Amino acid sequence: MRFTSQTSSDGVIEQFFTLGEIPGVLWTPEDACGTLPLILLGHGGGQHKTAPGTVSRARCYAASGFAVVAIDAPNHGDRPRDEEFVRIMAEMRAGMAAGENPGALVAGMHSRLAGQAVADWQAVLTAVQCLDRVGVGPVGYCGMSMGCGLGIPLIAAEPRIRAAVLGLLGVHGLAEDAARITVPVQFLVQWDDQLVPREESLALFDALASAHKTLHANPGEHGDAPPFEVDSSLKFFTRHLG
Amino acid sequence: MRFTSQTSSDGVIEQFFTLGEIPGVLWTPEDACGTLPLILLGHGGGQHKTAPGTVSRARCYAASGFAVVAIDAPNHGDRPRDEEFVRIMAEMRAGMAAGENPGALVAGMHSRLAGQAVADWQAVLTAVQCLDRVGVGPVGYCGMSMGCGLGIPLIAAEPRIRAAVLGLLGVHGLAEDAARITVPVQFLVQWDDQLVPREESLALFDALASAHKTLHANPGEHGDAPPFEVDSSLKFFTRHLG
Repeated sequence: MRFTSQTSSDGVIEQFFTLGEIPGVLWTPEDACGTLPLILLGHGGGQHKTAPGTVSRARCYAASGFAVVAIDAPNHGDRPRDEEFVRIMAEMRAGMAAGENPGALVAGMHSRLAGQAVADWQAVLTAVQCLDRVGVGPVGYCGMSMGCGLGIPLIAAEPRIRAAVLGLLGVHGLAEDAARITVPVQFLVQWDDQLVPREESLALFDALASAHKTLHANPGEHGDAPPFEVDSSLKFFTRHLG
Repeated sequence: MRFTSQTSSDGVIEQFFTLGEIPGVLWTPEDACGTLPLILLGHGGGQHKTAPGTVSRARCYAASGFAVVAIDAPNHGDRPRDEEFVRIMAEMRAGMAAGENPGALVAGMHSRLAGQAVADWQAVLTAVQCLDRVGVGPVGYCGMSMGCGLGIPLIAAEPRIRAAVLGLLGVHGLAEDAARITVPVQFLVQWDDQLVPREESLALFDALASAHKTLHANPGEHGDAPPFEVDSSLKFFTRHLG
């Protein structure tokens, strides 16, 4: 793990790093001492590790005593695009324009990325927990939309993750992995999501095997989740990892 | 308004009162000074103003700086039962035993009580806001199940109420009043509610005209709402009334 830059503001240290091919960012509280609970932050489709929503959420969590790490998903951000991914994205856009089921198309794109994304996160988690300023504490995962689509296979495969905030995605292609998830989950639904039909969102919430899961639904389209849901997710992580 | 007893513990003053025929309880923080935001607390069917869930919720809100008032609904708690109500309850139980739609039966019972309940709450609200220890501050309403069924007509009729926590009830008989509600609402659904079908809960949430409304759903039956939802409702009231 190689750190390439470090800045500090408002009590939070922000460090860019690479781990092999994977570019990432680590946020930690300036005044931390001892082991920190850690949150892995998965970005949405077409976005990247420093998308504004990702950074503001990360800084909010870090200011409350969490270590937070975000990485570019495969074929996103500072990572190279491979030909197959470019072809899949073009097919996905053409399919959507032709009125095909967007849930099925998006699920196909996520499943193309999931194997690599899970391996990336597992390697990054191991490396970050070796850092003195983080250590081996409880771990959470937060990701919406594509961050949920790549997060569900990760959480199903990764026993170190003990709580998750997910949502803005339907059940397509995820039912089996969701049925293997038993950790507490807070699940966000946008009630008028133009990309994810309400019934498919509720079906993904239903498919989670977690005994402790809470669905939060708010009016508005895919990108309209209200800012107070970030505070609510912080309360959730504090309750389960703090 | 006549106070009949006063005790104080854990920083909260609890005062029993009557206003005409209406028995009630007022909880206020011991160290309050100046105007307090006020929460009206409506209890569930067959319960009363000092049911354990109502008292613990009231004390939680009061300890955080709110004035809280609960009253016995008509035909509940310390209030007399009238013959018509006894007959309606017997018919409701017989109908449920015979497999009739419980949503329609419960809605019939609520509509029998709603006129009186709304008038009671409006009188109590006016009286409580005349108290020096409360004053005319922002007002919220919190009620689940029957507390929601009587609360929705109240909020639709009462412009002093500026935010509400509702839920555990379906849309039967409430669509028109819900469509007149525009204040922020947090709405609780139990995902496996044996008394309220999921679709009817979601339809009541849909029927609310509020631009700012959030649905919280948790696994479990009607009485199984998790304790952290009380904290979540406190955050909601603090955001809108604090």
